[in-house]
Amino acid sequence: MTALAARRMGVRVAVLDPDPHCPASAAAEVMVADHRDEHALGEFGSRVDAVTFDHEGVPVAAIARLERAGVTVAPGSAAALMAIDKAAARRRFAELGLPVPRFVVARDPDAILAFGDDAGWPVVAKAASGGYDGRGVRVVERDDVTDAWAALGPGPVVEERVPFEAEVSVLVARRRDGSTAVYPPVATMQHDGMCVEVSWPAPLPPALATAATGLAAEVAQAIGVVGVLAVEMFVVDGRLLVNEVATRPHNTGHLTIEAFTTSQFEQHLRAVLDLPLGSVEPLRPAAAMINVVGSPDGCDPLDRLAEALAVAGASVHLYGKPPRPGRKLGHVTALAGTVPEALSVARAAANRLNGVAAEQGARS
Amino acid sequence: MTALAARRMGVRVAVLDPDPHCPASAAAEVMVADHRDEHALGEFGSRVDAVTFDHEGVPVAAIARLERAGVTVAPGSAAALMAIDKAAARRRFAELGLPVPRFVVARDPDAILAFGDDAGWPVVAKAASGGYDGRGVRVVERDDVTDAWAALGPGPVVEERVPFEAEVSVLVARRRDGSTAVYPPVATMQHDGMCVEVSWPAPLPPALATAATGLAAEVAQAIGVVGVLAVEMFVVDGRLLVNEVATRPHNTGHLTIEAFTTSQFEQHLRAVLDLPLGSVEPLRPAAAMINVVGSPDGCDPLDRLAEALAVAGASVHLYGKPPRPGRKLGHVTALAGTVPEALSVARAAANRLNGVAAEQGARS
Repeated sequence: MTALAARRMGVRVAVLDPDPHCPASAAAEVMVADHRDEHALGEFGSRVDAVTFDHEGVPVAAIARLERAGVTVAPGSAAALMAIDKAAARRRFAELGLPVPRFVVARDPDAILAFGDDAGWPVVAKAASGGYDGRGVRVVERDDVTDAWAALGPGPVVEERVPFEAEVSVLVARRRDGSTAVYPPVATMQHDGMCVEVSWPAPLPPALATAATGLAAEVAQAIGVVGVLAVEMFVVDGRLLVNEVATRPHNTGHLTIEAFTTSQFEQHLRAVLDLPLGSVEPLRPAAAMINVVGSPDGCDPLDRLAEALAVAGASVHLYGKPPRPGRKLGHVTALAGTVPEALSVARAAANRLNGVAAEQGARS
Repeated sequence: MTALAARRMGVRVAVLDPDPHCPASAAAEVMVADHRDEHALGEFGSRVDAVTFDHEGVPVAAIARLERAGVTVAPGSAAALMAIDKAAARRRFAELGLPVPRFVVARDPDAILAFGDDAGWPVVAKAASGGYDGRGVRVVERDDVTDAWAALGPGPVVEERVPFEAEVSVLVARRRDGSTAVYPPVATMQHDGMCVEVSWPAPLPPALATAATGLAAEVAQAIGVVGVLAVEMFVVDGRLLVNEVATRPHNTGHLTIEAFTTSQFEQHLRAVLDLPLGSVEPLRPAAAMINVVGSPDGCDPLDRLAEALAVAGASVHLYGKPPRPGRKLGHVTALAGTVPEALSVARAAANRLNGVAAEQGARS
């Protein structure tokens, strides 16, 4: 989606990917190599004006190497670390005095036991790195500590299970000079740890919405990110807690393509290329986004495109990925006068793409 | 832009173009060959689910050959003829009883003289085919008839010079089953025969706006177009005259990308692929589009992207074409509460891309 936004502005994109038919190949030149291949990454960096990343799988050391080689990298290694290493991020946020859930970075299973006995069971344990869409996150009871430790790898973040009223996300684009464009908070709904539903505006009192955008901008400045930053927060007892961040265009910002004057993808490009940031004016009073996720039968949602397009007002995005159960294959966005209307349109089209009967879909 | 719209929905696009680096190559596979190469066009048709065209340079006979070979072609040859051959189109529209300027298809220079002496000088003479962006159109005085005849080729359309108050365009998407989606009329401003400025809503009384959309839908049904049809009309004395049509996404519809729920490019794809048509709900009360045209100094507008993006609310599109004086290289769209506001934002950004000082730009 970033490549499509780039092409619209006449900006050429190259992508480093081991798969020559990766989704970005639709709108970018592909240099076929793995991002963990030091030599390839160096070669790639030398060919382009600026390098950015759309996932957290790149070793921080590799980003730092690019920086030392004089390549323009955005976000830089220090900011990217906050998305790549959850333990480093949580420690840094706590140091900065940002509100975070009560947590410990566990050095051994006993540290988890001690934390849980104090904070209450169950706790939530997250792998320090490599987690994605709910993988690498476990709700851990006292009996499961040994298993969880083995599964999550060294140094997981262990935190209190927060009884949140809502989850919200705020997207911030930040340029090298510190200027920012901040989108209003969106509400996110997770299912099995994967973001499945996003709506705007988030149902927050105005003061809390303002606090959320302020908090996200504070995080962006504190970590010196260049590009788009997504700050995911819990709302607990009318207060905000920073959960985690992503230093790239994020699933919780997909609705910005239709709902705001400038999409998160264009903002990311603008920031990475050090161009003026765009307007974050909304176009309609409300918007909703639902992910299209590979169904157990392995069907391709593209085969159901006609049914989905029959839903008036639904904007359908399919990523051209081979279908696989549980894989994010696309999303649907709808704009409307109110959130329930937008959700209803987006859900109707997404259910058709997912091959889900309407009643079943309504459950999520 | 059609290829970008297709990719968003996961639809794969192949393009037949003699230039492997053509703009569509950014988002489509290119089969490198000329569209007038019969063999290549046949081969291309056999590889894809449906064929469409984004210019009027394809011989009607070639389209008919594809149809006979059983390829899904949209628009078909009969509808495409209305865009490719202005003489055939004007005769057909007159037969259908549609309001058109007074005209003659001239068989010789004497026919032009006779028409002009009767209708009044100057007249407007248009090459029957091959015209584009003002090329192939001449305002002809009695003394210029011999020159004009030589320049325009056989069988030009010669018409009265219509003292129009405004030019409007209506975009219609039509499916094979006759269902249509009709956008409200836009106002167009030409300069040297090239469309340079489009704004919505067109300043028409409500009854005339309704008449314009009705007339465009009537043309779409009459010629049986499948895909997007642009119907350009003159407003004269509060009446509408059909000027000419294009059977493809059209420059006068570029603002639909931002201004309406479904863009003309997506609608064209939906119609060509026989998918349900999308909503034509506007997102804001007004919109404007200004073309970015190659300046005499041959500068690349991409080099001025930063200046243009500093204009808040401007959506910049650059096509990745090599710059050449007078060539359409991109466009800028802005949405706003009123047409003057939208025009002002779009002009400001387009002037920066065109390297035109603000005062100069205001002239156009």
